[in-house]
Amino acid sequence: MLRFGVIGAGRIGKIHAENLANRVPGAEVAAIADVNLEMAQETAARLRIPAVYADYHQILADPNIDAVAICSSTDTHAHIVVEAAQAGKHIFCEKPIDHDLAKIDAALEAVKKAGVKLQIGFNRRFDPNFAHVRELVSQGKVGDLHLLRITSRDPAPPPVSYVKVSGGMFLDMTIHDFDMARFLSGSEVEEVFVAAGVLVDPGIGEAGDVDTAIITLKFANGAIGTIDNSRKAVYGYDQRVEVFGSGGMAAAANNTPHNDVYVDAEGVHAAKPLYFFLERYMESFIAEMKAFVAAVQNDTTPPVGGMDGRIPVVIGMAAKKSYLENRPVKLSEIG
Amino acid sequence: MLRFGVIGAGRIGKIHAENLANRVPGAEVAAIADVNLEMAQETAARLRIPAVYADYHQILADPNIDAVAICSSTDTHAHIVVEAAQAGKHIFCEKPIDHDLAKIDAALEAVKKAGVKLQIGFNRRFDPNFAHVRELVSQGKVGDLHLLRITSRDPAPPPVSYVKVSGGMFLDMTIHDFDMARFLSGSEVEEVFVAAGVLVDPGIGEAGDVDTAIITLKFANGAIGTIDNSRKAVYGYDQRVEVFGSGGMAAAANNTPHNDVYVDAEGVHAAKPLYFFLERYMESFIAEMKAFVAAVQNDTTPPVGGMDGRIPVVIGMAAKKSYLENRPVKLSEIG
Amino acid sequence: MLRFGVIGAGRIGKIHAENLANRVPGAEVAAIADVNLEMAQETAARLRIPAVYADYHQILADPNIDAVAICSSTDTHAHIVVEAAQAGKHIFCEKPIDHDLAKIDAALEAVKKAGVKLQIGFNRRFDPNFAHVRELVSQGKVGDLHLLRITSRDPAPPPVSYVKVSGGMFLDMTIHDFDMARFLSGSEVEEVFVAAGVLVDPGIGEAGDVDTAIITLKFANGAIGTIDNSRKAVYGYDQRVEVFGSGGMAAAANNTPHNDVYVDAEGVHAAKPLYFFLERYMESFIAEMKAFVAAVQNDTTPPVGGMDGRIPVVIGMAAKKSYLENRPVKLSEIG
Amino acid sequence: MLRFGVIGAGRIGKIHAENLANRVPGAEVAAIADVNLEMAQETAARLRIPAVYADYHQILADPNIDAVAICSSTDTHAHIVVEAAQAGKHIFCEKPIDHDLAKIDAALEAVKKAGVKLQIGFNRRFDPNFAHVRELVSQGKVGDLHLLRITSRDPAPPPVSYVKVSGGMFLDMTIHDFDMARFLSGSEVEEVFVAAGVLVDPGIGEAGDVDTAIITLKFANGAIGTIDNSRKAVYGYDQRVEVFGSGGMAAAANNTPHNDVYVDAEGVHAAKPLYFFLERYMESFIAEMKAFVAAVQNDTTPPVGGMDGRIPVVIGMAAKKSYLENRPVKLSEIG
Repeated sequence: MLRFGVIGAGRIGKIHAENLANRVPGAEVAAIADVNLEMAQETAARLRIPAVYADYHQILADPNIDAVAICSSTDTHAHIVVEAAQAGKHIFCEKPIDHDLAKIDAALEAVKKAGVKLQIGFNRRFDPNFAHVRELVSQGKVGDLHLLRITSRDPAPPPVSYVKVSGGMFLDMTIHDFDMARFLSGSEVEEVFVAAGVLVDPGIGEAGDVDTAIITLKFANGAIGTIDNSRKAVYGYDQRVEVFGSGGMAAAANNTPHNDVYVDAEGVHAAKPLYFFLERYMESFIAEMKAFVAAVQNDTTPPVGGMDGRIPVVIGMAAKKSYLENRPVKLSEIG
Repeated sequence: MLRFGVIGAGRIGKIHAENLANRVPGAEVAAIADVNLEMAQETAARLRIPAVYADYHQILADPNIDAVAICSSTDTHAHIVVEAAQAGKHIFCEKPIDHDLAKIDAALEAVKKAGVKLQIGFNRRFDPNFAHVRELVSQGKVGDLHLLRITSRDPAPPPVSYVKVSGGMFLDMTIHDFDMARFLSGSEVEEVFVAAGVLVDPGIGEAGDVDTAIITLKFANGAIGTIDNSRKAVYGYDQRVEVFGSGGMAAAANNTPHNDVYVDAEGVHAAKPLYFFLERYMESFIAEMKAFVAAVQNDTTPPVGGMDGRIPVVIGMAAKKSYLENRPVKLSEIG
Repeated sequence: MLRFGVIGAGRIGKIHAENLANRVPGAEVAAIADVNLEMAQETAARLRIPAVYADYHQILADPNIDAVAICSSTDTHAHIVVEAAQAGKHIFCEKPIDHDLAKIDAALEAVKKAGVKLQIGFNRRFDPNFAHVRELVSQGKVGDLHLLRITSRDPAPPPVSYVKVSGGMFLDMTIHDFDMARFLSGSEVEEVFVAAGVLVDPGIGEAGDVDTAIITLKFANGAIGTIDNSRKAVYGYDQRVEVFGSGGMAAAANNTPHNDVYVDAEGVHAAKPLYFFLERYMESFIAEMKAFVAAVQNDTTPPVGGMDGRIPVVIGMAAKKSYLENRPVKLSEIG
Repeated sequence: MLRFGVIGAGRIGKIHAENLANRVPGAEVAAIADVNLEMAQETAARLRIPAVYADYHQILADPNIDAVAICSSTDTHAHIVVEAAQAGKHIFCEKPIDHDLAKIDAALEAVKKAGVKLQIGFNRRFDPNFAHVRELVSQGKVGDLHLLRITSRDPAPPPVSYVKVSGGMFLDMTIHDFDMARFLSGSEVEEVFVAAGVLVDPGIGEAGDVDTAIITLKFANGAIGTIDNSRKAVYGYDQRVEVFGSGGMAAAANNTPHNDVYVDAEGVHAAKPLYFFLERYMESFIAEMKAFVAAVQNDTTPPVGGMDGRIPVVIGMAAKKSYLENRPVKLSEIG
């Protein structure tokens, strides 16, 4: 049994706690911590978690705890990674590690020094649709990769107050797509060009961010990619990918709450996509935890490592620079 | 908390135990029993179920247990329903209650007398695809029902040894489709005609059963239905329904492990259906238990009651008679 | 150049005339005849057909005409087939040849005696969807055939006045599905059972016919089939088939005017099927004529011969008898 | 009857000649000309076109000819437009008018001066899929346009010899997509950024062209678009579009030779897209001619006018410049 301490009892903390408690064989939740103690207590009671703390240092101090799931606010991730590594805990950390490359590097250094496992929460790699597309690429079914397309549209924009602290759309939302681009292509992004605008909510523009974008990626292997983002698709969460190469094409469609069609005098009607990430990625949240537990138990490398957490932040920074300067930006310009 | 005793720790018993333990809020598993004690112990250990018995009577004798999930072999269902009712336990019973109408009637009488809740395990009603088709019918979107079509094909036939004790395909496999026909149409079957044969496995024929059938149903509301069954679809579990009426048509397609297409010089390729009922109906097994728990907690009528368990057995008997006599058989001929 | 005389300038006559004139290489229309001379003249003018007659005998008398397309009313088909055969013309005859088996047999006898080619207008065999399903069956991709399903629903019922002279739904509408069943299965129907009713239009019932049916077919090769018919699908012409066997399944979906989806807050919306046979079977009307012209030019057997015209009439008669007597009827009972 | 002279009897000339002769009511082909007289004669014989010339000036000199369809090689288009306009003929001209803006402007000026109708052969606007997407945009169903996506991939690259005279991929192939972008968005492109490479055929690179590209478009109305191109999709012609806006999304899928699925133990298999433009755009070639004939007959503005021929050439030039200079290029830089 891998004994977890869950740090942070917000939306994503609750999901990981419940999955670790009930759906990930070989794992159990020994403690949960949140500065909002009441929130942590409520989850602890529901999931019969024995220990609840306001201060996560109590988790780090508990010698019976093997691993932590860091689900606190983004600005605390890097620091807790360092402390957890020093305490000898294996670490599952939600994305992004940080928006500051120096802090990321310090965190990765601490992990390396401590010799603990680190996995970053890019859960979409574990989605059955995307994992299967990756498998087709890996098997050579797509041949040499020529084109990659990602559509990633949220059902509704976050509050402007959140936008202000989010690091901007590219680091908050598109970061998942940058990870997906690396994952599907098996290659590194070298250059980024962004066309973007404020088409959904003027308040987002006033906060200095964009809400709609098309991003061109040039990969080291010669392939070219495009990501389209919107903060608001009225029909729900739109999460599709397509890879195209010398051998063929593979594409993932959206998931829906049911597979029915209703046909009347107006036409054929089917369900719109699942509403948002909680619905769409339920399975992948479980699968990523199973993979992390397996990596710790078998002493293997976790499937989404520290550099997988760092590189999408670099791409996000290049994207922002490209947008501001209206020119293609090489990743080597960032660091 | 509704405290359950699970009777039977075979394939379906394990599923219900795990769902009650981990996925049905408001329920917990207090005990599990199986004549194969070791099998019960293994499940109890995995799910941390405190009590394990070889004899289910110990569950019935425990005053702290509120409800039982009867997952033992079919020939024991009716008898355990009677005993559980007499012990004052609410009852979730796997289908079919029995193959003998007299025993079914005795069981239903005992339930009625005891005033306990009874729900039959026709889980497909809780499948999101089928539930949504039913909803469209209920909302009047299909108008007056004219035609109903059910395709129900298994990925592989059961062993001939099982076929011999199963009651035959109509009572073992098609019984789910008879329930679905009643559920979707909101009407009762009045007459059945069966064309059937042994096209999959001659051993099934030697055991006195069929493995392939087309069944015509006439409903009280004037609608007509057709069910097609096969014991072996090489591409997996094929579970589709269609309703057609004066207002339109609604149809449920199969579920697949992913929603990708791969396109090469040969054509477009997509995933075949999920392999069998464990994969396909995972969600509906959880949903039916949630509904049962809610019915007990709120003291309402469970959504699949005793007569819903009895009537499909009658239809199955009429189907067998129709096949043997090659003529349409009215349900009123059966009882 | 195969020189055609088109007999009958109604709806289907116009289609064949236009296809022969413009879309079937190697064919031309030398004359058109209709008792309604004005109607024939209008078509002749549009298509630049040189000769127009009120009396089709003038076509039969023209030694420069090689073949006739019989598109007149059903009650005249058998008689004209005989006359055309005697005149040495190759014959394309719309379905059905007749509703009377003796008349059909006389017509087939005349054709045989004259040694001319005869093709019956079961155009659906030439539809790309159905032809491809047949090809999969022929190639063994479906393995041994176990189940066959045909859905055939019209967008709107014919006028009751037409119903009265149509021979009934089974001979007028389902006859195409009986042909499709034989075509797809490559086997002969031996027994029929019909469940039917009047659910669309009470006037059809008053005229002694039905408008909704489910028909069970038993084939000589052991397979079982089901056809569902409705005279009114509010969403348009519903024409689907499915074959299932030991090797897999093949299914044809409907055709639509475009392949778009529109997704809004309500769901995904796509086009309903093409409205009726003129839209859906445009290609197959051309392809059947090309096949007929090729058979004449190459002196080969036309792909839909005289017995292919006779047998579906027998099945239709058995279907009617089954409905009236509520029992399975063997084709051997009919003749 | 609108009497046409078809200039050029190559692949596209043959298509237009056949459509005008047989499938466009109100039109007829009075003459056909090609420097390869034999090729023109062969088509004339097949379609019974009365006059055949090696020199198209004979068409222009014939006072009984009302309109010309210019289907000769690209480098002759602009010049023939001028001559045809001066001869008072209405003009249907294949795309592009020319690769030289001065020549295009001279041609448009001659058309204007002569007062004849001019329609450019951007046939895809008449494709039922794309026309319906445009209709949804026009009706406001998509709301304010935010994102536009076009996938346009050919089944096989042209010979390198052709590539050398084609003007490059952007003017030869993507030009259709630039037209589609304008058509679907109802807005003008203001800026272009191109990422491209030689991934299909090194010979294309040696000829100074690219074979794979992703093109970002910024529109005057604030929307952003992306086009992805490949000269070689092993699965055939891939022609999809998607528009996304504040009200929803509309997308056009590919067309296939049939709508069947075949399901075996490996999965679900369906037909790949129609092979190339001759198959895919057969209907749109007819529809564009019907629209041109109607515009002449009703003295209305043809639906694809001279500026619709000029602007995509400008976008293509900007695309090439963007690729060469690796920076976004404004159309105002071109002219």
